[in-house]
Amino acid sequence: MKKSVVLAFSGGLDTSYCAKYLSETLGYEVHAVTVNTGGFNEADEVELKSRAEKLGVATYTFINAEKEYYNDCVKYLIFGNVLKNNTYPLSVSAERTVQAQNIAKYAKEIGASAIAHGSTGAGNDQVRFDLIFQVMCPEMEIITPIRDMSLSREEEIQFLKNHGFDIDFEKAQYSINKGLWGTSVGGKETLKSRHSLPEDAFPSQVEKQKPTELEIEFKNGEVVAVNGETFAHSVFAIQKIESLASPYGIGRDIHVGDTIVGIKGRVGFEAAAALLTIKAHHLLEKHTLSKYQQTIKSQLSDWYGNWLHEALFLDPVMRNIEAFLNDSQKTVNGKVFITLYPYRFVLNGIESDNDLMSDKFGSYGEANRAWTGDDVKGFTKVLSNALTIYHQINS
Amino acid sequence: MKKSVVLAFSGGLDTSYCAKYLSETLGYEVHAVTVNTGGFNEADEVELKSRAEKLGVATYTFINAEKEYYNDCVKYLIFGNVLKNNTYPLSVSAERTVQAQNIAKYAKEIGASAIAHGSTGAGNDQVRFDLIFQVMCPEMEIITPIRDMSLSREEEIQFLKNHGFDIDFEKAQYSINKGLWGTSVGGKETLKSRHSLPEDAFPSQVEKQKPTELEIEFKNGEVVAVNGETFAHSVFAIQKIESLASPYGIGRDIHVGDTIVGIKGRVGFEAAAALLTIKAHHLLEKHTLSKYQQTIKSQLSDWYGNWLHEALFLDPVMRNIEAFLNDSQKTVNGKVFITLYPYRFVLNGIESDNDLMSDKFGSYGEANRAWTGDDVKGFTKVLSNALTIYHQINS
Amino acid sequence: MKKSVVLAFSGGLDTSYCAKYLSETLGYEVHAVTVNTGGFNEADEVELKSRAEKLGVATYTFINAEKEYYNDCVKYLIFGNVLKNNTYPLSVSAERTVQAQNIAKYAKEIGASAIAHGSTGAGNDQVRFDLIFQVMCPEMEIITPIRDMSLSREEEIQFLKNHGFDIDFEKAQYSINKGLWGTSVGGKETLKSRHSLPEDAFPSQVEKQKPTELEIEFKNGEVVAVNGETFAHSVFAIQKIESLASPYGIGRDIHVGDTIVGIKGRVGFEAAAALLTIKAHHLLEKHTLSKYQQTIKSQLSDWYGNWLHEALFLDPVMRNIEAFLNDSQKTVNGKVFITLYPYRFVLNGIESDNDLMSDKFGSYGEANRAWTGDDVKGFTKVLSNALTIYHQINS
Amino acid sequence: MKKSVVLAFSGGLDTSYCAKYLSETLGYEVHAVTVNTGGFNEADEVELKSRAEKLGVATYTFINAEKEYYNDCVKYLIFGNVLKNNTYPLSVSAERTVQAQNIAKYAKEIGASAIAHGSTGAGNDQVRFDLIFQVMCPEMEIITPIRDMSLSREEEIQFLKNHGFDIDFEKAQYSINKGLWGTSVGGKETLKSRHSLPEDAFPSQVEKQKPTELEIEFKNGEVVAVNGETFAHSVFAIQKIESLASPYGIGRDIHVGDTIVGIKGRVGFEAAAALLTIKAHHLLEKHTLSKYQQTIKSQLSDWYGNWLHEALFLDPVMRNIEAFLNDSQKTVNGKVFITLYPYRFVLNGIESDNDLMSDKFGSYGEANRAWTGDDVKGFTKVLSNALTIYHQINS
Repeated sequence: MKKSVVLAFSGGLDTSYCAKYLSETLGYEVHAVTVNTGGFNEADEVELKSRAEKLGVATYTFINAEKEYYNDCVKYLIFGNVLKNNTYPLSVSAERTVQAQNIAKYAKEIGASAIAHGSTGAGNDQVRFDLIFQVMCPEMEIITPIRDMSLSREEEIQFLKNHGFDIDFEKAQYSINKGLWGTSVGGKETLKSRHSLPEDAFPSQVEKQKPTELEIEFKNGEVVAVNGETFAHSVFAIQKIESLASPYGIGRDIHVGDTIVGIKGRVGFEAAAALLTIKAHHLLEKHTLSKYQQTIKSQLSDWYGNWLHEALFLDPVMRNIEAFLNDSQKTVNGKVFITLYPYRFVLNGIESDNDLMSDKFGSYGEANRAWTGDDVKGFTKVLSNALTIYHQINS
Repeated sequence: MKKSVVLAFSGGLDTSYCAKYLSETLGYEVHAVTVNTGGFNEADEVELKSRAEKLGVATYTFINAEKEYYNDCVKYLIFGNVLKNNTYPLSVSAERTVQAQNIAKYAKEIGASAIAHGSTGAGNDQVRFDLIFQVMCPEMEIITPIRDMSLSREEEIQFLKNHGFDIDFEKAQYSINKGLWGTSVGGKETLKSRHSLPEDAFPSQVEKQKPTELEIEFKNGEVVAVNGETFAHSVFAIQKIESLASPYGIGRDIHVGDTIVGIKGRVGFEAAAALLTIKAHHLLEKHTLSKYQQTIKSQLSDWYGNWLHEALFLDPVMRNIEAFLNDSQKTVNGKVFITLYPYRFVLNGIESDNDLMSDKFGSYGEANRAWTGDDVKGFTKVLSNALTIYHQINS
Repeated sequence: MKKSVVLAFSGGLDTSYCAKYLSETLGYEVHAVTVNTGGFNEADEVELKSRAEKLGVATYTFINAEKEYYNDCVKYLIFGNVLKNNTYPLSVSAERTVQAQNIAKYAKEIGASAIAHGSTGAGNDQVRFDLIFQVMCPEMEIITPIRDMSLSREEEIQFLKNHGFDIDFEKAQYSINKGLWGTSVGGKETLKSRHSLPEDAFPSQVEKQKPTELEIEFKNGEVVAVNGETFAHSVFAIQKIESLASPYGIGRDIHVGDTIVGIKGRVGFEAAAALLTIKAHHLLEKHTLSKYQQTIKSQLSDWYGNWLHEALFLDPVMRNIEAFLNDSQKTVNGKVFITLYPYRFVLNGIESDNDLMSDKFGSYGEANRAWTGDDVKGFTKVLSNALTIYHQINS
Repeated sequence: MKKSVVLAFSGGLDTSYCAKYLSETLGYEVHAVTVNTGGFNEADEVELKSRAEKLGVATYTFINAEKEYYNDCVKYLIFGNVLKNNTYPLSVSAERTVQAQNIAKYAKEIGASAIAHGSTGAGNDQVRFDLIFQVMCPEMEIITPIRDMSLSREEEIQFLKNHGFDIDFEKAQYSINKGLWGTSVGGKETLKSRHSLPEDAFPSQVEKQKPTELEIEFKNGEVVAVNGETFAHSVFAIQKIESLASPYGIGRDIHVGDTIVGIKGRVGFEAAAALLTIKAHHLLEKHTLSKYQQTIKSQLSDWYGNWLHEALFLDPVMRNIEAFLNDSQKTVNGKVFITLYPYRFVLNGIESDNDLMSDKFGSYGEANRAWTGDDVKGFTKVLSNALTIYHQINS
């Protein structure tokens, strides 16, 4: 019996090469799998299937994992207002994590003897795939032809041609990765520190100039409605926000960060829905959470984002943090009002039954209804005790 | 001998009332003191002195504390990239802290028997003044007529008129506080949760439309040059940045946060120099600090900002955090390149001899020069061990 | 109709005084309530009831809250291995929190117009009672005769005598507070920094010399069996541990800490069951939790303990942390083996199906079965990258 | 010219094998170096030199690094009260870190072409040596014969015999590592989870039964005197404490923790001086530091210990934390009074000019001199505001 391999297949040059190489050179029965985390539509699915078949794979499977992606990961990035280094919504990190888990699950189901991915040796993805495969399928071999052989584009294309697969792989100027939670844009300027990306490097172009109002409604921290329209699943709500805000060029930036392999990396991105959702959610939390909820949640979420980024999603501490995050969202209900402008947006305000800002108790700087001036005198007296003692003893 | 009081004097209605009330009603010899943290120019100084004298104070003193303000406080807000609730540069919190310390020092120098401030009972400032006065001058009485008597504007004006001080205190629609690190704008919309401030509520209006390039140079985390121009003190560099960016309406936002007295408060602000400096500094740090330096510094800085806000600047832990921050800035050197647009700015990139992003070692996603694919295989193998064991034991 | 007050009643001199003072001097209908958090047995209950009745209260209620105390609070102190300042099991802090909540609930149920406690102005308890009463019954007046009047013991006794209540309140040398989670011992030596408590200050004396074996079994982090004996509720298991370990004088120490009112305080305690349970639980966690679970849980638990101590139990962040803690205990199952000696104990080891220390994968310092030497070379190569780059760039 | 290698030489079987193997089999000129971090005395030095010479090394160097060890590392473990997993003073982690740095420095000085250590593939030391060598000498090859060849004891002995080196390497039942900051004891029981070490596994035996008084004096957090005797360097003070406490069997325990390679490891230790110094220092800090200094320092120190353990000592964040720690020790001055008993000790109390516990201001639970009952009422009123609002809004 032929040994079988499951290949994480994106349809690009590298994974096309892998498909051929695994079957022709290594003699595997190749089961190609694409896990959709929001980057592919139905036309893409047809095209991917066709390409895989032309490459002669034994089977091709397209797994639609958008809801799982949201439920298992994106949801917590919203709850935690997670922006890596205060900038990047971690879209690629999160996608790879969910893709790798789906690939591994599939490989176990069909009893594959090996599992393959097309990552190079220079990025984070290799670690995410390797690590999740090792944890979930420790008995399977992991095969990474691109990393192992360090082939040039031309060599890959020639190999494919030699094996009867002759497609025009156009060399894009930028490497693009699209998903529910954002689109990354790497290459050229991002390889150095000095310059930002030019306007046309971004897949979405600015097409609207006139400001629009946007209203996002949250229930227990999740988006349930956009401009009054409700959705069967938050995935659709996020897609709606993206469709409204993307024509404004909102949510573009460049992330500079520490890769898992130790070098600094830089990558551009556009992520209108992610930025709007997180910033709106964060504003609503400022009105509905206690001071310490915000402080502790923020610090936990930093770690959550870092470890997600560093391929440690399967560490049980991530589940524990998710339990904290879930519990913290009970009062995060209400509407956030936003105005969209080209390249930017303004958070106007919120309405919420859980809003802790209520002039029933007092009005900042204006009126104290729930306490007296004498109460504050006592408060500051007692609050100062420790410091007064410290400075008297140590003066 | 008459007992003497030092009054924190801003020249507004409340502190004018205090000046008269302290002398006329309470029989004190009043020493009015204004501490300038960047909100007053020379004309203001003359006007303040004149007003104080008309109010019949025994002495009037104008303390120029801008450099001290920067050295003792603003510097660390830059080092820590401190934006309260990820938004607000803490300008008022920082100013009051430095003002209160200067007032207290002055009161001790002249041997005053009391110390007075004009805060109401509804805000944060009362706590900052009370607390720092109690810690630094525990033997002095603290007098707070406005908080104690809850007078209306009209009553205050009438009292002043009755005592021969008849000036037109125009009632501004918004309460404005200006300083080196930003200008706060409170009132009307900020008293409720729903709406943002209208364009004309902001003291600075957008006057420039054409993008400009801005270059900020840092040495050990401090701004030393702006567009190539060097400065005798970072205070002047910050003022330069403000003058360049303020005509773009940059750095406006609304802060929603937890007051020290327990209610939620909302306040608008414009702080072009603060936002630009912090974001430029933060970008430079992403290139020059290690991963863990950034993570730990960020968490410490959150606490630093919170405690500064909550009047705990004199806690020795603040000095300990400053020691950490100082030490962390050794490699934060280089230039940051920015483009200014109306209402926003883009961080283009950096140049630094301490830039850890160097293609000598590898290029993210493109090339691994300092390690091999096999090294990464070993890395992910060992890194996965703990999780593999966890999931096998617990499956 | 007479206005009614609910009095937190412990049966001591202070609350006896309050009972009389509230009815005789202030004219209240007094409803005395004792909340038992493990310090009282059935004989105590009879005695308390009798004393309250002699004091002429309108009603007396004894609320048995041991299980609630465990379920709402002690359980999380175990999950978090909480020892304030690495020493003190927070017994009194936890008891007051649960007592105050029960008193407040009772006061609301009977529609009382006021609520009273007998705390002095010098400790933490006043803040815990005040704060929880204000949060839960903001409409009720809080009456604190002892704090307000600063009476001497003699004055209180005389007042009671004058009102026909003449009992011999012996002046104990130490002030003792007993509960499920430990007994505190304050007075004399603990009022200064220099000396520890003498042997006979501790209520339990060392009566056993011969070592005994103790086996504690945990399920999801909770004690379910002691020496093989199972219990209907963890409260009984804890009492069993206490009965076995207390005759060894285990769990004695002096806590030095920051009171809520700003001074440093010092208090002795004996808490055999608390110390044994926490240390055994912690050891089991070292074997069954991941590295990052332990680190994050430890830091969260520090805050949990601090805020419990500081009367902030009702902050919603506490519920969020409890959600984290609950989730973290899924794998904390197994037996811990201990030997008890006079004044100390030794944790011998554990047995657990969730033990992550398994020689199937490798044996520390002896054998690597799940990885090769080459894997580690790759691991250290990649792990060193960031530091190597840092030191080369900055040398 | 012969290529040269610097070998980290401990004189045991593994590094003896390496010495021969590197010269005879690999043809290196071997420069053996021992770095003393407190485990070797002068007789040991003579013996090590003689053994190295018998093994035919080109040069042998004994580096006395005790003071450097203390200054660069142990000092901060004291400042941070660092006990890994609340138990282990990190003696081995700290020693390897300082040893590796000294070896690397030496290798650079003599311009060696390679650097070798004798670690196996199953422990933490290999990572510490590899990583520090790679960071400090990235151009040198790292040779690890023991890890690479997985030889048995017998094979190593036979190889040495074949090359004329025939010494009786007795197989100890436990593997012992001695240093200034403690002695680790591994083997047999520690390889499994269930049992503790027997009495005679510990190198020091309990020889004293009668309690003794011990007085440790600190200045800026460092030990300056023991029982009134002052020392030229803290290293000697620590050795004095060890000599006094070791005969009581104090400071024994078993550490269970996460190795860098992912498995759980268990190791026994005796570390009388480390435990006494840390616990005494910690007590003094409870009296002399502010609440927040203690909380933040504790959390930072946890990370410091973890990263030291995980070979990340050269990360610049460690220097930043050290700056925090240094600054925090300004007020940590005074004497700590301890009684030593067999297997345990009691911290009696402290004397310090910086003691913040002073009845000038108040006495916990007894007297409030610096504030009134009304002050506390105001304090609790204002402190409760946020929670009262939260619970009213969300009820």
